[in-house]
Amino acid sequence: MVQPAYTRLDVDERRRRLLELGGELFTRYAYDELSMARIAREAGISKALLYHYFPSKQAYFAATLEQAAAELVATVTPDPSLEPVEQLAASLDAYLAWVEAHADAYAKLIQSLGSVPEVRELVERVRRQTADRILAGISPGAAPTPALRTAVRGWLWFMDGAVLDWIEHRDLDRVELGGLLLGTLLGAVTAAGAPLRG
Amino acid sequence: MVQPAYTRLDVDERRRRLLELGGELFTRYAYDELSMARIAREAGISKALLYHYFPSKQAYFAATLEQAAAELVATVTPDPSLEPVEQLAASLDAYLAWVEAHADAYAKLIQSLGSVPEVRELVERVRRQTADRILAGISPGAAPTPALRTAVRGWLWFMDGAVLDWIEHRDLDRVELGGLLLGTLLGAVTAAGAPLRG
Repeated sequence: MVQPAYTRLDVDERRRRLLELGGELFTRYAYDELSMARIAREAGISKALLYHYFPSKQAYFAATLEQAAAELVATVTPDPSLEPVEQLAASLDAYLAWVEAHADAYAKLIQSLGSVPEVRELVERVRRQTADRILAGISPGAAPTPALRTAVRGWLWFMDGAVLDWIEHRDLDRVELGGLLLGTLLGAVTAAGAPLRG
Repeated sequence: MVQPAYTRLDVDERRRRLLELGGELFTRYAYDELSMARIAREAGISKALLYHYFPSKQAYFAATLEQAAAELVATVTPDPSLEPVEQLAASLDAYLAWVEAHADAYAKLIQSLGSVPEVRELVERVRRQTADRILAGISPGAAPTPALRTAVRGWLWFMDGAVLDWIEHRDLDRVELGGLLLGTLLGAVTAAGAPLRG
């Protein structure tokens, strides 16, 4: 029984490493510059083995994105025992720390939003989940008003724009940016008629 | 002297009508579905005459966008004798009225941001000009702080996201949405340390 379990772990581990490498490759090169042959070479494995893990470059790219998104979601999930505003502040800071550590990849991701359907779907899904979590914190158990839904959805766009500006200029520290984001959300939610309790 | 002047006017008038038609065609059809032959047919002119006005479909598309952007800028330019917040409120309402009248075109434009370089450049330019105008209203004559620049740039993203949500759901009226946008900008600017004087 030991051998199969070991082999299985090895497969998972190689997959994990390939996804990690993907995060790096798709940041360093444009999508069109990469071929399965080149990816296999960079990974130090045969093309046949790479195809064993991922049926196409597109599938490899999609899996890389999924992996990054799952990591991000795990990182920013707040401690549910905190107050809503504190949960939000903690999530935000974790998110900004993640962006700081992956600035180039993040900028590339946001800029490719329109042209790569996989990216658009993923970002839309993450936005929707994040919006739902924020809305659940603001008005637990109740359906949000249209104004509140619009405020939170708009704020997620604000965050993307502000973070891109931050990456480009690097003239704010993370705490300042976090304060700006939180203050803006409070302003938006208040303007939507649902002040956030601190 | 009368004849050349008349002819000249006629040329301008036809160009204006072609641009108007372009606004309609590029909303109704995907870019790839339209050919110069089809555009000429829709305009009721020969393909040769269409090429006389625009050397390529891409040039026609770019000119259509420019025309729409110029119209929009003219519409939202506020009365400079008003207070900054009133200028902003008036601009915002004019902008939302314009979006309401061109909802399908607007949604298509924002969604094509990533894939059509002309659109991205145009939207970026309009965003930059709008940001400069807002910043000049908030801190006249002074360079904005990094936090304030980030707040205003982020807010323009907020506006795009909120407006897309509005077009999709149509469950807020224009005045409510305008209030939400203005309240959010006030929140963002205050969080950036530069409260807007009303």
